[in-house]
Amino acid sequence: MSFYGKLRAIQQKSNSLLCVGLDPDINKLPPHLRRNDDAVVEFCASIVEATKDLVCAYKLNLAFFEILGARGWSAAHRVLSLIPDHVITIGDAKRGDIGNTAEMYARLLLEDFKFSATTVNAYMGEDSVRPFIKDANAGAFVLALTSNSGARDFQYLKLRGKPLYEHVIGRVTKWNEKKNLGLVVGATRPAQLKRVRQLVPDMPLLIPGVGAQGGDLKLAVRYGCDKRGEMALINASRSIIYASSAGNFADAARAAALAMRDEINTYRQRFF
Amino acid sequence: MSFYGKLRAIQQKSNSLLCVGLDPDINKLPPHLRRNDDAVVEFCASIVEATKDLVCAYKLNLAFFEILGARGWSAAHRVLSLIPDHVITIGDAKRGDIGNTAEMYARLLLEDFKFSATTVNAYMGEDSVRPFIKDANAGAFVLALTSNSGARDFQYLKLRGKPLYEHVIGRVTKWNEKKNLGLVVGATRPAQLKRVRQLVPDMPLLIPGVGAQGGDLKLAVRYGCDKRGEMALINASRSIIYASSAGNFADAARAAALAMRDEINTYRQRFF
Repeated sequence: MSFYGKLRAIQQKSNSLLCVGLDPDINKLPPHLRRNDDAVVEFCASIVEATKDLVCAYKLNLAFFEILGARGWSAAHRVLSLIPDHVITIGDAKRGDIGNTAEMYARLLLEDFKFSATTVNAYMGEDSVRPFIKDANAGAFVLALTSNSGARDFQYLKLRGKPLYEHVIGRVTKWNEKKNLGLVVGATRPAQLKRVRQLVPDMPLLIPGVGAQGGDLKLAVRYGCDKRGEMALINASRSIIYASSAGNFADAARAAALAMRDEINTYRQRFF
Repeated sequence: MSFYGKLRAIQQKSNSLLCVGLDPDINKLPPHLRRNDDAVVEFCASIVEATKDLVCAYKLNLAFFEILGARGWSAAHRVLSLIPDHVITIGDAKRGDIGNTAEMYARLLLEDFKFSATTVNAYMGEDSVRPFIKDANAGAFVLALTSNSGARDFQYLKLRGKPLYEHVIGRVTKWNEKKNLGLVVGATRPAQLKRVRQLVPDMPLLIPGVGAQGGDLKLAVRYGCDKRGEMALINASRSIIYASSAGNFADAARAAALAMRDEINTYRQRFF
């Protein structure tokens, strides 16, 4: 199934725009798990088991797996194997390199790990993005306007009257022949998010920055969705996976995910 | 020793500006090695052994190690352990992410692998770069103007009369309180390289794009060096490590590295 099709299908099936970010920081795991050699896998497995009917996607932050060394690679594989096939999996690696190197990263993420989609940094331009979108079934979310404070350094700079991130969006739109590209746009920039949705009415938007980073959830949903009230992926990581560090952390994560899914749904609007 | 000091010391000791890029593509390794489970380590070990007195640095392209899965992590460690301490090691990972994630990547590259330096993508701004330059002894080369065709998509866009990459350079100069930042500037852009060196007279420049990518070596050296004829790292990967695929590939790599080091030295000029 095409990437866009798969995304719509799971958002309808689970009635959810929620993407849970798996950033398993070993120092933040529930203390009772940390004694275990496989703490990260056990933690993520519990979170996935508790939330898998409530989400449209999981986003694995590769940094938190790579830091585990050789074990991190198999940990990511094992976590991925627990996620149902119809749920989108995003390899959040933000890679960007010259063509032949980007090929390697794309092979690792799409063929080895078999993520449904990746995140990509397009500073190096077209040949750094192409390997991630060769397969129409694999999606790629290109960094446009990010949720962090550093976004101000370059992304807002105006070039020929338009901020840099709009130039990125222009190129991404051009590269999107296979309809498998999306954008990363932070929830911390609602006015810009609204404008981005006008520029790309059909493209999936991965929206981090609600929860721990303080973005406004209502505006993120209202401005981020397409006309059917879909195609936005609202990402929350820390506010869900670390909802509790007690023995019941998985129940707490489920409660947080359920509350967030339902709150998101109260903000969704359909204009057709 | 400070990163700049360490770089000057090895460039003087080895009388070399050559950085050999280790991009061990399993499909390009000499056929007689490929049968071996540890082909990548064996290949890189032979290249390092044959060239370690001729270089100022090795640049490990992480993509080519990560693609090996769990074994890639230990392969990179084993290759690093063979490189003499006074030689610079660059973890070419081009990471760039929000602060807490960048912390993880920096820990992996600088504390776990103990690279002397990294390459960093600054699209996400200051907080994505900071973790890589916390330690004054660790260097970071920020992507400014890259050697690939896609560089044209964004890096040349003009803002307030200056191309984007000059804005990047302006910020990098500001962030450089610890004197451990450098820039990546492709050899395929000699006129721009000349201008960059004027903007940052003292900063190390990592210069890929000679060899397989076709950049002009003479201009790369002439424009890339500082006034002492130092602080440029001229990177060559494929033209050296794949100089031959026969049984004598290591000898061929040594001959190619020696020829390139010497050619580079004929172009070096000192203005003081």
